[in-house]
Amino acid sequence: MAGNPGVGEVDAAAYMKHWASRVDDALNRFVPDGGGEPPEVFRIMRYSLFAGGKRLRPVLCVAGCEAVGGDPGAALPAACALECIHTYSLIHDDLPAMDDDDLRRGKPTSHMVFGEAAAILGGDGLLTLAFELMADEEMASAAGPDRVLGASRLLAEAAGASGMVGGQLLDIRAGGEPGGTAGLEEIHRRKTGAMIRASVMMGGLLGGGAPKQLACLALYGAKAGLAFQIVDDILDVEGDPELMGKSTGVDAALDKVTYPALYGLDASREMARRTVDEAIDALSGFPEGAPALASLAQFIVLRRF
Amino acid sequence: MAGNPGVGEVDAAAYMKHWASRVDDALNRFVPDGGGEPPEVFRIMRYSLFAGGKRLRPVLCVAGCEAVGGDPGAALPAACALECIHTYSLIHDDLPAMDDDDLRRGKPTSHMVFGEAAAILGGDGLLTLAFELMADEEMASAAGPDRVLGASRLLAEAAGASGMVGGQLLDIRAGGEPGGTAGLEEIHRRKTGAMIRASVMMGGLLGGGAPKQLACLALYGAKAGLAFQIVDDILDVEGDPELMGKSTGVDAALDKVTYPALYGLDASREMARRTVDEAIDALSGFPEGAPALASLAQFIVLRRF
Repeated sequence: MAGNPGVGEVDAAAYMKHWASRVDDALNRFVPDGGGEPPEVFRIMRYSLFAGGKRLRPVLCVAGCEAVGGDPGAALPAACALECIHTYSLIHDDLPAMDDDDLRRGKPTSHMVFGEAAAILGGDGLLTLAFELMADEEMASAAGPDRVLGASRLLAEAAGASGMVGGQLLDIRAGGEPGGTAGLEEIHRRKTGAMIRASVMMGGLLGGGAPKQLACLALYGAKAGLAFQIVDDILDVEGDPELMGKSTGVDAALDKVTYPALYGLDASREMARRTVDEAIDALSGFPEGAPALASLAQFIVLRRF
Repeated sequence: MAGNPGVGEVDAAAYMKHWASRVDDALNRFVPDGGGEPPEVFRIMRYSLFAGGKRLRPVLCVAGCEAVGGDPGAALPAACALECIHTYSLIHDDLPAMDDDDLRRGKPTSHMVFGEAAAILGGDGLLTLAFELMADEEMASAAGPDRVLGASRLLAEAAGASGMVGGQLLDIRAGGEPGGTAGLEEIHRRKTGAMIRASVMMGGLLGGGAPKQLACLALYGAKAGLAFQIVDDILDVEGDPELMGKSTGVDAALDKVTYPALYGLDASREMARRTVDEAIDALSGFPEGAPALASLAQFIVLRRF
């Protein structure tokens, strides 16, 4: 269906399942069970890497690569790098000095199992591993070193002080003082949005996307990231803790700035739907369509409601 | 003096001063005072980046580049990346969950000033910034993207789970239980040695060094790194806290495995001197000499005794 992203042509759940399993295989190759010296730090890293993550960021990277006509398999090291960064951020966010969470996806958090020092180091190890994967020789020869360096730059910018790290600091500092709509959006744009946007763009860049295509992917990613965060905030209010594998009501207890707190549940749901529509609209720049990305955007917002 | 590294031809102190100041300028350009959004995370990063570090790793990188005939100025982003990694490791090592240090180079440590969560995030920001700098476009066009990717890989390996992060975990776990000579050497090889070795090699790789030259630099770096750590252990026993800007006797109080604890002070001093000689011997592979590296190795061991 030229000129139409072709919503629904791809079964997002099946697509997620297929690529999540390819990402798991690649992660198992990069961080093998029982491999690595010294062993304990690799055990710590694997504990959180294989704790039931949905691999959303890696799958978005693969789908971004596919959308521009690239070979999605060649982007797998970058997809794994995204998951390493995401996982480290969860380990550090859960620390007693941060959100002080005991459970994550139904399992004890890293510092509950290994202790605080080891959890900090496990996170540092994953963050560093991400950039070791970005320098993967096979990916560099498949995609070319210039594209790989560009993707590496995108990842560092999204994960770093102006992106995820800065957003987490703003979030901590904002406790109870929302700073209005603009403040809330800035926190989420940096803390979650930047990495989701980078995931899609890295795939597009590695796949050889033209500047116009990359601009579409950037807009898609920004909107999808925002929608993801709104839904996350909603699920923290009304999600089923059993299904989600983590405590709900945490944001309210921590006095966190959230969409439902600022706008109410109904308006937040409406915002999530509208934002997903905008993400899908951004794909109209792909004449051949980008059905996987379109379905994934729907999937994000439909996760539980 | 062909065939001779030409010890003493370069004044190491002056060389350090010159290049440390170039590195400071570059760091000020990459992380400008009052620049960056959100501002607080950049303030946290700058606080530790400009806390009086001697810039040893960046200077070794520059000297490694020079030794193979490369343009040392072109390696400055990589040199700064090394300092970012070193600085983040100090911030995280000082945390209450790790070594619980209040002072570093005579100044309150990051978590004492900004709080624990912010210090963790400041460290994460610096670690991520290191790889943003490794993807610097100017460096990539000067040295070529393949060399830059290779240097990035060296950095990630040295800083990561098998290198510095793994060494720090071993160090924490070893508390009071040396594990003999082999255990002590493994801790130091990973924790300090790997980054010092990588510093020299990254410079050599970016400067276009031949495989044989890189092998010499690897051996030089491994020996220089070991000497550095032995001297560090010695200074913790007999150094002047005023001069060093940090508490001494910390290792003993923490029951840490050290060279003086295992071998005594005299034998440790002798080991340091011998190891520096071995580092300098490794430079005999440079027919034109590598006087800066030779002098720097002497400088490391002569720091205070």
